[in-house]
Amino acid sequence: PNQYLASLPTTIFTIMSQLAVKHGAINLGQGFPDTEGPQDIIQVAADALRDGRNQYAPLTGLPELREAVAASNRRFYGLEVDPATEVVVTSGATEALAACLMAVVEPGDEVVVIEPLYDTYLPALKLLGAVPRCVRLAPPHWSVPEAELRAAFGPKTKAIMLNSPMNPSGKVFVREELELIADLVREHDVYAICDEVYEHLTFHVKHIPLMTLPGMRERCMRIGSAGKSFSLTGWKVGYVTAPAALASVVAKAHQVLVFATAPNLQRAVAYGLNKDDGYYEGLSAQMETQRDLLRDGLHRLGFETLPADGSYFIVADISRHAAGRGDVEFARWLVEHAGVATIPVSAFYDPQGDAPPQNLIRFAFCKKPEILREALKRLEKAL
Amino acid sequence: PNQYLASLPTTIFTIMSQLAVKHGAINLGQGFPDTEGPQDIIQVAADALRDGRNQYAPLTGLPELREAVAASNRRFYGLEVDPATEVVVTSGATEALAACLMAVVEPGDEVVVIEPLYDTYLPALKLLGAVPRCVRLAPPHWSVPEAELRAAFGPKTKAIMLNSPMNPSGKVFVREELELIADLVREHDVYAICDEVYEHLTFHVKHIPLMTLPGMRERCMRIGSAGKSFSLTGWKVGYVTAPAALASVVAKAHQVLVFATAPNLQRAVAYGLNKDDGYYEGLSAQMETQRDLLRDGLHRLGFETLPADGSYFIVADISRHAAGRGDVEFARWLVEHAGVATIPVSAFYDPQGDAPPQNLIRFAFCKKPEILREALKRLEKAL
Ligand SMILES: CSCCC(=O)C(=O)O
Ligand SMILES: CSCCC(=O)C(=O)O
Repeated sequence: PNQYLASLPTTIFTIMSQLAVKHGAINLGQGFPDTEGPQDIIQVAADALRDGRNQYAPLTGLPELREAVAASNRRFYGLEVDPATEVVVTSGATEALAACLMAVVEPGDEVVVIEPLYDTYLPALKLLGAVPRCVRLAPPHWSVPEAELRAAFGPKTKAIMLNSPMNPSGKVFVREELELIADLVREHDVYAICDEVYEHLTFHVKHIPLMTLPGMRERCMRIGSAGKSFSLTGWKVGYVTAPAALASVVAKAHQVLVFATAPNLQRAVAYGLNKDDGYYEGLSAQMETQRDLLRDGLHRLGFETLPADGSYFIVADISRHAAGRGDVEFARWLVEHAGVATIPVSAFYDPQGDAPPQNLIRFAFCKKPEILREALKRLEKAL
Repeated sequence: PNQYLASLPTTIFTIMSQLAVKHGAINLGQGFPDTEGPQDIIQVAADALRDGRNQYAPLTGLPELREAVAASNRRFYGLEVDPATEVVVTSGATEALAACLMAVVEPGDEVVVIEPLYDTYLPALKLLGAVPRCVRLAPPHWSVPEAELRAAFGPKTKAIMLNSPMNPSGKVFVREELELIADLVREHDVYAICDEVYEHLTFHVKHIPLMTLPGMRERCMRIGSAGKSFSLTGWKVGYVTAPAALASVVAKAHQVLVFATAPNLQRAVAYGLNKDDGYYEGLSAQMETQRDLLRDGLHRLGFETLPADGSYFIVADISRHAAGRGDVEFARWLVEHAGVATIPVSAFYDPQGDAPPQNLIRFAFCKKPEILREALKRLEKAL
């Protein structure tokens, strides 16, 4: 078999979810909500199965979904997008990431990525023969190290992958940071793959797509996710917004990788995207309440937490409690002895790189308040 | 953008489907049924949306679907398969093909493919840095050229891709041909990626999975498709059966490409796979009736047809009618002037290879009898 793929460990999300089941633990590891998305969206998906549109959707997605994606770009960010040529629907954001990478890189190209990073970025890159240039955000504020970021760009750079709001850190990049990135992208004449799946999950800060910055419209591939925006992570419906010249190549990649996405789910997502602002505000308000609940509880237990202005996640410093144990060991101990599953943050660093921080674990707060409270109780008891 | 991807033409299926719409033509081009799959399967998919299982499915698929795939392997082919470790559910057979290729090839490896071939095979291969070794079936009987097939295998060969029942030819490989292939696979110690999406669509010939031949169990990745088996091509649910050591690597590829597939569709497909033999017999009988109707009609119009014992497709020789025009030109003429869309078979050959046959077009017969009759009438009028 392919050496590199065979050597990849099973994703940490699956491992921790399995341990959670085994130990009857509360799963604050893998990021999925325990409250199902809006019932009316689900109803549209069910109804849409029954009117004879179960054959192949068009390669780039159903027109109604591409239009809804374009409308959403306009409504939230003032981006004017042609639904016919600048939107590609994918089977989730993971496929979107792979397709966007395929669309721009050739073997030997370098791609700048920011650690800690989502666990398919590096394998996707490496399988395409591209070379990652990793830049690490600095705890405890997840600050962007400007000199290192600059140094990561060079003549071989083809693209940067930017995840904001960011998994696992919960960081939302601010305008100043985005301007630095945009400068580098322009200066080095490269592309940006913008993973914005948590775009509607920010807490009293504004999500700014890199694509809205000067000169970025033609260089960005912006990825959204119905799973995250509608708390239906199993549906695996994603969408890429990109200038037509790039979108057409992303579509070619999608043609080879999957070809099309289930029409009934696409129709339901189109319906969902058109929901009024109240829906989106409610979603982020609810998530923020849950973040606050978890964060405050962790503070009471003596954990310091890192800034988490968006996403499903908050990272805690375990130094006080770990008694010298690393994050992997501590996370294993927690799932076994406290009955709470988390994810060790070292799993989000290039295994080929320098030793990652060993003092951080990630908690998912996309869970019901009573579940979060119970998890905190269990932690208190165990610690 | 990536040069190779950018240079890929839009898939011929999309082009001909668009021309069909433009000219109000009957679409015997892109292969999708115009009769929706069983209503009870669709109902299961709709019901399954409503009981709170809309978050991520497990990476390799829901247990109930993996068990149904294993049971289907046993029932139809006597293959004993461990549902826990030897089945991977994918977002359709296209993704399955990409994942299987990723699982076994490294850049520079050679892969034997048989022309005419399905249009993602070559791009998928080439994007992974693998090198195709194409062997052409010989019209008018789609016979396997033994010497050429032998010559295509060598020290760099890593795998063969075998599509039986075959698209676009409609050929079903017989035991003797499969034995030759199995011999070569064993002799050269390589893998076989077996695209068997039309496994249940054969007409009075038996589909024999290569995997059932001696020594093949450990070397084959066998791909099935709910879209084709249940006439629901839009759902994009596929499944790979492979020995555990390979299946685990296919799963890693799936993790990077898509990660998981919609749970409600998986549950409906699990239900569908367990349908009794009558369902499968009815499906192939209906398709055979349609093949006969189309084939006999084409004969009456003076087209010779090539053997088509399986799949949705039959290939016709256009020499008598084309008056020197090539297949591409003739297919365009047909969609415009006869109002019938087909696919020129030259589209199924490596564009980098020798000139393909120019005298063949593919008709899809997965359409209602009245539609096929109307198409034949239109052809008669135009010719
Ligand atoms: C695709 S499983 C992982 C879900 C997720 O985004 C996370 O937990 O980080
Ligand atoms: C994925 S669109 C093509 C459908 C098909 O298999 C064909 O027409 O050959």
